[in-house]
Amino acid sequence: MSQISNHTFDEISIGQTASYSRVIGEKEIVLFAAASGDVNPVHLDEAFAAGTMFKQRIAHGMLTGGVISAALALVLPGPGVIYLGQSMRFRKPVTIGDELTVHLEVTAKRDDRKFVTLDCTVVNQSGTIVADGTAEVMAPTDKIVIDLPPEPQVSIEA
Amino acid sequence: MSQISNHTFDEISIGQTASYSRVIGEKEIVLFAAASGDVNPVHLDEAFAAGTMFKQRIAHGMLTGGVISAALALVLPGPGVIYLGQSMRFRKPVTIGDELTVHLEVTAKRDDRKFVTLDCTVVNQSGTIVADGTAEVMAPTDKIVIDLPPEPQVSIEA
Repeated sequence: MSQISNHTFDEISIGQTASYSRVIGEKEIVLFAAASGDVNPVHLDEAFAAGTMFKQRIAHGMLTGGVISAALALVLPGPGVIYLGQSMRFRKPVTIGDELTVHLEVTAKRDDRKFVTLDCTVVNQSGTIVADGTAEVMAPTDKIVIDLPPEPQVSIEA
Repeated sequence: MSQISNHTFDEISIGQTASYSRVIGEKEIVLFAAASGDVNPVHLDEAFAAGTMFKQRIAHGMLTGGVISAALALVLPGPGVIYLGQSMRFRKPVTIGDELTVHLEVTAKRDDRKFVTLDCTVVNQSGTIVADGTAEVMAPTDKIVIDLPPEPQVSIEA
């Protein structure tokens, strides 16, 4: 099991960057629908999706938001982060099998509250921006090194 | 199976409201982690969470975002909606078993692009605001009535 460590508020500098990647497959879309209740057929029903402007099933925009959340929680700042807010624009559809990469860049720090602002840009495997926005977090003050928690194992029933 | 219908752009009026509720249980948190990759131990590990300011496991902020997404997709505007953007502030922690209710209110319409702006306020079962923000969507132009898609059935492996 690999370990991950965080970046404390004091260690974080303006201009600092990090990235995190995740493939969005059939499984991730179905699990997001089951978690959120968002069973919009454009995400789940091939026949319905074929009649939309997208012509095929697309991932939930907010699932891309979940990948941004993962980037903040696992990479920068990492464990101990507290999520305060997020803005996002969903610019292009994410389709099944796309590999998303979240690029984070620290743009501001507020010393009194330990708040950190990060620009978030999410690109697919072709480099096309699918979403972008701004995250605000409270950065941890204590250094933490933890074993990377395993992803929960789930199965989808036919 | 119950049916759901949408609100087309022309049917939507400024000041129109709607709401959508969902209980956030252990299952929803685990599925969100598996979907997004966000295995932040404050959401999944009771012992780690006990050492945080929250003293217990909390739901991912972006899972609340997912419930907002469900409200937009299933209720207002409903099927055929295209999600353009979202801002959110995560104001209070959501803990296991909380029932979230998303209140939506239409605040603006843009005729040329069929864009609709909605205020989003998410409260728990005590009426405490846990998150709020603004959604921007493209509303459907065609009336759609569909069977409410079933939620995917998934199981979590021990």
